[in-house]
Amino acid sequence: MNSSHLPANVRGPDSESLSDRFARVRTRSLELCEPLAPEDMTVQSMADASPTKWHLAHVTWFFEQFVLAPRLPGYKPVDDGYHYLFNSYYYTAGEMHQRPSRGLLSRPTVDDILAYRRQVDERMSELLETADAETAFLVTLGLNHEQQHQELMLTDIKHVLAQNPLTPAYREVVASGGPAAAEQGWHGFPGGIVEIGFGGDGFCYDNETPRHRCWLEDFGIASRPVTNSEFMEFIAAGGYRTPELWLSDGWATVQAEGWATPLYWRSDGNNFTLGGLRPLDPNAPVTHVSYFEADAFARWAGARLPTEAEWETASRDVEMTGNFVESDALHPMGRDQSGLRQMFGDVWEWTASPYAPYPGFKPLTGSLGEYNGKFMCTQMVLRGGSCATPEDHIRPTYRNFFYPHQRWQFSGFRLAVDA
Amino acid sequence: MNSSHLPANVRGPDSESLSDRFARVRTRSLELCEPLAPEDMTVQSMADASPTKWHLAHVTWFFEQFVLAPRLPGYKPVDDGYHYLFNSYYYTAGEMHQRPSRGLLSRPTVDDILAYRRQVDERMSELLETADAETAFLVTLGLNHEQQHQELMLTDIKHVLAQNPLTPAYREVVASGGPAAAEQGWHGFPGGIVEIGFGGDGFCYDNETPRHRCWLEDFGIASRPVTNSEFMEFIAAGGYRTPELWLSDGWATVQAEGWATPLYWRSDGNNFTLGGLRPLDPNAPVTHVSYFEADAFARWAGARLPTEAEWETASRDVEMTGNFVESDALHPMGRDQSGLRQMFGDVWEWTASPYAPYPGFKPLTGSLGEYNGKFMCTQMVLRGGSCATPEDHIRPTYRNFFYPHQRWQFSGFRLAVDA
Amino acid sequence: MNSSHLPANVRGPDSESLSDRFARVRTRSLELCEPLAPEDMTVQSMADASPTKWHLAHVTWFFEQFVLAPRLPGYKPVDDGYHYLFNSYYYTAGEMHQRPSRGLLSRPTVDDILAYRRQVDERMSELLETADAETAFLVTLGLNHEQQHQELMLTDIKHVLAQNPLTPAYREVVASGGPAAAEQGWHGFPGGIVEIGFGGDGFCYDNETPRHRCWLEDFGIASRPVTNSEFMEFIAAGGYRTPELWLSDGWATVQAEGWATPLYWRSDGNNFTLGGLRPLDPNAPVTHVSYFEADAFARWAGARLPTEAEWETASRDVEMTGNFVESDALHPMGRDQSGLRQMFGDVWEWTASPYAPYPGFKPLTGSLGEYNGKFMCTQMVLRGGSCATPEDHIRPTYRNFFYPHQRWQFSGFRLAVDA
Amino acid sequence: MNSSHLPANVRGPDSESLSDRFARVRTRSLELCEPLAPEDMTVQSMADASPTKWHLAHVTWFFEQFVLAPRLPGYKPVDDGYHYLFNSYYYTAGEMHQRPSRGLLSRPTVDDILAYRRQVDERMSELLETADAETAFLVTLGLNHEQQHQELMLTDIKHVLAQNPLTPAYREVVASGGPAAAEQGWHGFPGGIVEIGFGGDGFCYDNETPRHRCWLEDFGIASRPVTNSEFMEFIAAGGYRTPELWLSDGWATVQAEGWATPLYWRSDGNNFTLGGLRPLDPNAPVTHVSYFEADAFARWAGARLPTEAEWETASRDVEMTGNFVESDALHPMGRDQSGLRQMFGDVWEWTASPYAPYPGFKPLTGSLGEYNGKFMCTQMVLRGGSCATPEDHIRPTYRNFFYPHQRWQFSGFRLAVDA
Repeated sequence: MNSSHLPANVRGPDSESLSDRFARVRTRSLELCEPLAPEDMTVQSMADASPTKWHLAHVTWFFEQFVLAPRLPGYKPVDDGYHYLFNSYYYTAGEMHQRPSRGLLSRPTVDDILAYRRQVDERMSELLETADAETAFLVTLGLNHEQQHQELMLTDIKHVLAQNPLTPAYREVVASGGPAAAEQGWHGFPGGIVEIGFGGDGFCYDNETPRHRCWLEDFGIASRPVTNSEFMEFIAAGGYRTPELWLSDGWATVQAEGWATPLYWRSDGNNFTLGGLRPLDPNAPVTHVSYFEADAFARWAGARLPTEAEWETASRDVEMTGNFVESDALHPMGRDQSGLRQMFGDVWEWTASPYAPYPGFKPLTGSLGEYNGKFMCTQMVLRGGSCATPEDHIRPTYRNFFYPHQRWQFSGFRLAVDA
Repeated sequence: MNSSHLPANVRGPDSESLSDRFARVRTRSLELCEPLAPEDMTVQSMADASPTKWHLAHVTWFFEQFVLAPRLPGYKPVDDGYHYLFNSYYYTAGEMHQRPSRGLLSRPTVDDILAYRRQVDERMSELLETADAETAFLVTLGLNHEQQHQELMLTDIKHVLAQNPLTPAYREVVASGGPAAAEQGWHGFPGGIVEIGFGGDGFCYDNETPRHRCWLEDFGIASRPVTNSEFMEFIAAGGYRTPELWLSDGWATVQAEGWATPLYWRSDGNNFTLGGLRPLDPNAPVTHVSYFEADAFARWAGARLPTEAEWETASRDVEMTGNFVESDALHPMGRDQSGLRQMFGDVWEWTASPYAPYPGFKPLTGSLGEYNGKFMCTQMVLRGGSCATPEDHIRPTYRNFFYPHQRWQFSGFRLAVDA
Repeated sequence: MNSSHLPANVRGPDSESLSDRFARVRTRSLELCEPLAPEDMTVQSMADASPTKWHLAHVTWFFEQFVLAPRLPGYKPVDDGYHYLFNSYYYTAGEMHQRPSRGLLSRPTVDDILAYRRQVDERMSELLETADAETAFLVTLGLNHEQQHQELMLTDIKHVLAQNPLTPAYREVVASGGPAAAEQGWHGFPGGIVEIGFGGDGFCYDNETPRHRCWLEDFGIASRPVTNSEFMEFIAAGGYRTPELWLSDGWATVQAEGWATPLYWRSDGNNFTLGGLRPLDPNAPVTHVSYFEADAFARWAGARLPTEAEWETASRDVEMTGNFVESDALHPMGRDQSGLRQMFGDVWEWTASPYAPYPGFKPLTGSLGEYNGKFMCTQMVLRGGSCATPEDHIRPTYRNFFYPHQRWQFSGFRLAVDA
Repeated sequence: MNSSHLPANVRGPDSESLSDRFARVRTRSLELCEPLAPEDMTVQSMADASPTKWHLAHVTWFFEQFVLAPRLPGYKPVDDGYHYLFNSYYYTAGEMHQRPSRGLLSRPTVDDILAYRRQVDERMSELLETADAETAFLVTLGLNHEQQHQELMLTDIKHVLAQNPLTPAYREVVASGGPAAAEQGWHGFPGGIVEIGFGGDGFCYDNETPRHRCWLEDFGIASRPVTNSEFMEFIAAGGYRTPELWLSDGWATVQAEGWATPLYWRSDGNNFTLGGLRPLDPNAPVTHVSYFEADAFARWAGARLPTEAEWETASRDVEMTGNFVESDALHPMGRDQSGLRQMFGDVWEWTASPYAPYPGFKPLTGSLGEYNGKFMCTQMVLRGGSCATPEDHIRPTYRNFFYPHQRWQFSGFRLAVDA
């Protein structure tokens, strides 16, 4: 345990106890499954995604493995076979079932997994009554982990349903057509030495540390993310057919995959959403674009993407509210508002920064050190959370990361310029 | 409609009416699903196999497409989207969902498909009351088709469950350890002009016609299929490591797939069966071997596989009884019996014959001509049915066919020799 | 050595001595390389094909391995490393370099390989002076083997040159535009018991034996192969877009490969030939078609392909002359001639027969048993030789074989019908 | 033309004229081919590498396309077909032959390409007599480009020869066993604002600009690269079998490729070098390691790789001499020397820095902007040149870049630590 990451305050909403938070977050996972049939929860639509029931079991295993087993003397796992099935990528914790084969597992069934959750929750409630600081940290980590998987449950099931010619909706969703997006403006920031990374109280992931200095030149950042109507201009201008706008790997991907629009756009002007097929909202932030597409758009627009240091610096005085999963829209929306806005919620924003360790970065010790650090290569940082992110899960220093070709997350972007 | 295939008698067990047979066969499909959860019925474990619920829906679509639509004026499909999803390979009937993607379809759910079956069954019962001969043929074809899929439901779910590290059983099965297998003897047959192919009353597939002459040299055929204990000798003798025993494509497959035993054998002496992990029964016919393995064993044994003409000729006086699906063993068994035996049931027997059209073969007209004829290339003929075949589905002239590398069916073999 | 295959007469043209034949065939291989640069002789354009220099070395290794080593006591190979590199698929002779990697071998150079040939030829000439019958058989086998590779050298280099956007010609070739093709007629043959397979004096491959009886129904066979102009009608009629004309595997290949014409046809009406780009000759037999295309054409035409027994029976009274490699056209040509014609030369003719062992077939003993027998699965038989076949290499009983999707050989077809 | 990159001084060695430099560099490419046969120069051993003759032609096309065509009015290309064949990746200059298919081109032959070079050199010599500053820049860029390809010619042909079971040497090379490597020490550098990037006279690539500030924390850097003997300790300690030492993508690569040593190491203690098989020199810097291996070693050693800013800062006072291609060793060597050493030559050193644009980076305008900028994603920066780099080609600010899994370059690494 690397105690430097032990937070002074690991609670969520003010005055919520750890037990309450545990109950709230765990229940939330089940609520997300309410619209789903067992069949939905079983399918794996691609190697990058996991079946819903696998998510439900994996986050539960996480508590067994990293909280119950080390903290409850003599703890016996609920099922000896689950460790192999539900370990995701913690090699130091043992062997695991291969990720692309998660959809081959018809058993344990959803009912089996719900029973598994109940059994683990019971043991956890014993533990939570007398949790010390380190236990509190581990539980908090486990709950943040579960919240990450809640977002993946939504993006993964969206991908499953989108493969189906019947285009079934995840559930009824309130019309996502929000107000018109305000004009894009620019907000300038002076360069100099800035500090970024987590330095406060409360919980953070190890990859947000240490808080450190870096040098920035003067820069400007767009007041809001790029919208669907703006992205349609890029398409109309031949963006997807113009190799000089693209990174070399991006162009290769466009050719290999036959990309001509963001993911989930249909040629009839509709768009597959968690609410089923819906007309594309021109005012909403464009989403389900890869880093390659964000970068190509920026080049076409004579701009660039912000670095994560620029993004974090710009976010300092922005209120951390927005269209999170609690709004129940489950899709990005336009917003008619002035000032620097929508930095939180709606869409994860691709930055120009490769996901790399901060100077002096030390991963958590033990298996939990595998959580973030080993992915610090060939992925890009995204910031700000999305319409599928729990509101109390995000921070200005939060570093999300995906490969530059991936686009099944609610990923969008905003522009930046040199001053 | 190619009326030459209209059978005089399309009934199953004596005096069973077509309606009764329809009800019996359709019900049987549902009975086979009783041990399964919706999750089991959704998974596709490889491109060659299909999810259980897809089978249930496809055989139902078959009645809609080939019986109800052409026979009931103004018939409206139960769901307009199902034609695309549940057409398997009938290009003349329209476009279809790609086979390897059947496991991506979480919807329609199992419940939806059961409702679909009920609706189709209702319309079918109307039709069956007044069925003319051509309708009776089509219904009989549809029921035989459903029986074929019943066998595939068993072999496909076996493959799904076998991928699972938890090795779940399909259901409790009576111990398959049968009596010791009698010694293998040889039965000689004189050569000359023989006739093979279907020439009787009752139903047959188009690929069994026309009955025709062919020339055979004298031959001998083994009294029973090769057993597990005999196949273990082949393994012990280095059979899987000796390239000169194998066809060239067979050896390439052994190398590429790392084959060292039949499918479902474990290194601990157990064997994955529909009843879960079970000790390998040395007396039972070896099963889940590919044509390549059957051929290599035969070469090692100084013998060969029989041609389908030899097999059919040898089967003339053999009673068509045996270990079919109705025995509920769901696995091949040894049998201590004299004479030429086990030609029917237990295991499909690979023959040396490529699956090719009989001289003068004419496929059924229309879409149903796609049922068999278009597969007459690069596959091998198997004969005799297996422990997963319905008893009233098999005939001495029945030609089953699979690619020489495939082994997830209950496929075994018996030896033959030149006289 | 399986002495039943020892021929009474292993010579080529009358009264040619074995030494003369050896010199003639070996020299011919070098003559075929005259138009080629070392660079041409190094490239492997696909896994099915081999570099020219590999062919030159492999056929030489064949003499070292199967003649010199067993017949010359104490024989030392020219280079110890060559056995591994130039063994093609004789597992009983030892390990080998993987076929798809032959194009990675820049060494030995062409000059090295020519030196290798000279050294082997010198030792062979010693041996030929005192060859006994068994040696004579082995040498004859080696020369037939080299002639097969001479044909492959032409078809493989054609494939190499066809990949090149510069479309270089192999060499100047006399215009292949032959006379108009005569109308296609039909020649009827009565059914009954026929004998096929090699039963005469002289050399044959083991796969042509034993001569044996089979039963044929009455049949008709086309007087000549299908021509380019006839195949263009099939294309114009949408043949490549009509799934019901195709075998299931054929249609999958058409889709996967995007086939819309035979190999080497260009959209501008030209055709890549060994003489470079040339206008397509409507009168010439269609060539570079797969079995799948031949079969689909036949179905479209309301006919079928002949079986090999039918083809061999029909060829009985046909003179074994035609457009072979000696004519130097290096492309099939039309012929204005009456009667049953062009059965030999021009194009290898796909038959409806899967390549399978004849009843009672015994491969040669030892490594040479790997020559033919182990390929008797999932390939189809072709008959008659082509414009790239040496004239003294072909026989009416000669069985060539390729996979049904392959089309880089000079493969065409003629139609047949049930009587 | 982005004139900000026009150098004041584009010459190589003092007082060498541009014409002389052109002649010297162009001749050098031919000298590198002297040990090679046309067969060697034709083979492409993997998609990442190119045939020698393709390199010779491509660098010549570069002068045609970017110097002769825009600068000589009415210039006619030597061969109209070469533009398509020898354009590498300049989409704005037109369509191109696919990279993985370069080895399929037997024509133009080596002789054809040598003639092509002579013709272009003649036209270039006309132009060089009256070159203005912009022409001088373009020619200098073309010569640096050719020098980069000279290094690739060596690493690519090494890969070709290494595929060959005969293990042919590129040429006789002086024994690479150098003196023992001195002990590794550490050199500390204080943090603060530093400037990196090219800011001087003379030529540089656009990716080295602009010179800019960045913030560094205190750091230490190793006095020399990691040696073979040190890397052998990592292997002996189970480095390749310990997943927690590896980045996630690195471990996946180790598993998929079966890596257990650096590239070209043999299990018998030998090492494939341009001089053929040679005993592994324990004192030489380890080479042919991927970023993944460098990173895993560093983690195992309790250190890390330096960032490129750290590396460049540390290199400030290091003399730019070392084991370059001119030493003719063609392999890294140990050096018994004190101080911070071997930063230039021997091996390209992987840094911890993803290859990304410097703040304010502007690519060259026009097609030449595709030279570097579009690769700024998912690759890692290497610094310092290697034993295959021309001495006058390297600079302290030079940024080389490869994907983290690639290891066919002479790539090694040195360690760094936080202060």
